[in-house]
Amino acid sequence: MQRRPAETGSDLADIDTPALAVDLDAFTGNLDRMAEAVAASGARLRPHGKSHKCPDIAKLQVARGAVGVCCQKTDEAEAFVDAGIADVLVTNEVIAPAKLARLAQLARRARIGVLCDNVDVVQRLSAAAMAADVTLDVYVEVDVGAARCGVAPGAPAGALAQAIAAAPGLRFAGLQCYQGGAQHLRTPDERHAAIGLATEAAIASSVACVAAGLAVPIITGAGTGTFEHEMASGVWNELQPGSYLFMDADYVRNTVAPGALRFAQSLFVLTTVMSVPTLDRAICDAGLKSMAFDSGLPLVADRPGAHYVKASDEHGVLDVEVGSPARLGEQLRLIPGHCDPTVNLYDWLVGFRGSRVESLWPIARGTLG
Amino acid sequence: MQRRPAETGSDLADIDTPALAVDLDAFTGNLDRMAEAVAASGARLRPHGKSHKCPDIAKLQVARGAVGVCCQKTDEAEAFVDAGIADVLVTNEVIAPAKLARLAQLARRARIGVLCDNVDVVQRLSAAAMAADVTLDVYVEVDVGAARCGVAPGAPAGALAQAIAAAPGLRFAGLQCYQGGAQHLRTPDERHAAIGLATEAAIASSVACVAAGLAVPIITGAGTGTFEHEMASGVWNELQPGSYLFMDADYVRNTVAPGALRFAQSLFVLTTVMSVPTLDRAICDAGLKSMAFDSGLPLVADRPGAHYVKASDEHGVLDVEVGSPARLGEQLRLIPGHCDPTVNLYDWLVGFRGSRVESLWPIARGTLG
Repeated sequence: MQRRPAETGSDLADIDTPALAVDLDAFTGNLDRMAEAVAASGARLRPHGKSHKCPDIAKLQVARGAVGVCCQKTDEAEAFVDAGIADVLVTNEVIAPAKLARLAQLARRARIGVLCDNVDVVQRLSAAAMAADVTLDVYVEVDVGAARCGVAPGAPAGALAQAIAAAPGLRFAGLQCYQGGAQHLRTPDERHAAIGLATEAAIASSVACVAAGLAVPIITGAGTGTFEHEMASGVWNELQPGSYLFMDADYVRNTVAPGALRFAQSLFVLTTVMSVPTLDRAICDAGLKSMAFDSGLPLVADRPGAHYVKASDEHGVLDVEVGSPARLGEQLRLIPGHCDPTVNLYDWLVGFRGSRVESLWPIARGTLG
Repeated sequence: MQRRPAETGSDLADIDTPALAVDLDAFTGNLDRMAEAVAASGARLRPHGKSHKCPDIAKLQVARGAVGVCCQKTDEAEAFVDAGIADVLVTNEVIAPAKLARLAQLARRARIGVLCDNVDVVQRLSAAAMAADVTLDVYVEVDVGAARCGVAPGAPAGALAQAIAAAPGLRFAGLQCYQGGAQHLRTPDERHAAIGLATEAAIASSVACVAAGLAVPIITGAGTGTFEHEMASGVWNELQPGSYLFMDADYVRNTVAPGALRFAQSLFVLTTVMSVPTLDRAICDAGLKSMAFDSGLPLVADRPGAHYVKASDEHGVLDVEVGSPARLGEQLRLIPGHCDPTVNLYDWLVGFRGSRVESLWPIARGTLG
């Protein structure tokens, strides 16, 4: 467990860095904006908890009308159910018997959904549910274009849905149609085109289920980059965005259409300049162990003249422009390249307004499995 | 805290994935090989604890003759001292008053060293040492070519050493001369040339200290990629390699000279194939949250025909060759691109021999600050 980097009521300038922090004004604006937009569309909102892994945030989402949360791991599902979230969908394949047994146990305390993309797993899911004397909601994961998990659209989806519906202990709950590869396509046109193809795949799969005599209660999916397209399609009746709460440098690189909903950057890694070896170089205390770098380097927020140019494990190298020299001890706010795997590095999320620490939320960081 | 992924004595096939695991035969070979080589050279070995963050491993290193360990963070120093390591060098600048106060408190229980590259910090270090009634070992960090922290070689190093030696509560302990940028230069000639320049910088800095009337007890530095060059120079009398215990995919890309010491790959991320959507694609349960990707994708060990080609947060996508199809539930061993920030993601390091789990070591993961 990491040290608490701050206490509520303290000055943000006194925080122990590196630390993960969220601007509560921007964060709350994002929380409200998404809740209102999805409510107005008539779809259900089931935000993705893999972004925050934070039960306190899940409760804020449910309080604003979310039907529950998504997560990706059995450990995450346990953390959310332990915190009182009553409806959790693991948007992932779970196949290990030990994990399935734990998931089924959770269904004694909450509504639990899980994905399936292989008929050989249906029997395992059923056995776990029967052993725990519960019913699991099982969704067919359809590959709607991301080429990750999922059965092919259409007939294969219908056949798997039939197998699920026929298995004791399982309820066929619907279709998972998430186009993960479309979230970071850079232009609205590219994203619109990708979700257009995903829509065709979702419809073909739904038609196949209906042709097999099965109702499709839920078609769920979508992320922060594309949810307006799924919402407009009329096909998805549940949406799973997660990153909208925080945003990150990679989402900033997406262009958005005029009139599209915009979300504010709320998540930062706070870091301290600990060495100023030359006039044009400063070294801060946040590197590869403090942020994810899969989507590139962090941006420096609200501090002209400083650019994060290189990372090593515990150091960040900043190019500093002449005329805006760095100060030893100067605190900087970094915008991580990718929010989800950055949040995954911390035990605490510090909430601030202005210069004051207002909240300290534990993150269920150790939820890998 | 993460769930324990296994118990000692259990079968490795039953481990809860993703999990961090070390092949104890390869690991112990690496441990011994480095200890023997450095002992034969007459230099002191102070392995870098930032690689493992694991007190159990630090004890194994000390038992084989290491004088103590290095680390990069005040939190890490506390974890090592709490575990009984008697001599810890923080190879980094520490400037925050709260961190300095904690570091000075540690010096009541162990020998504590820290780096300095700025005369304005000398007074802070001195005040912290005086307040705790201890003496801190302070090393001048010299920039020997990596362009990260450090004063310029020669006269600036001598001047800073004088300021440290004159400050109450501080002992001028020597020079930190680490060329981090040379560790992953690909050819032995490139690494030799870089350490040649670092050697000149170290000598110039040592000469400047001596000219100022100061003895230079220790010149410390070196990493797994270059330590044989520092060892051969006769200038460094303390060596700080860390990654040699584990190795990683990026070190595999270094070519080594004939006759150079070689270290075996011992560190793996164990992962399970959880989806086989097509004949040529499999999806495993280790992605961006289970490994560091700053040095590229992981390699698949001991499993011909499978290649890790893409990662998302909780998924890895594998290209699978026709003729060696993936099996649902198949366990794979991944060689991470970069060992240190991968270890940083886990609370437990599983030690195995053959197919049996032999040890379960806690990692002081939450040591960021």
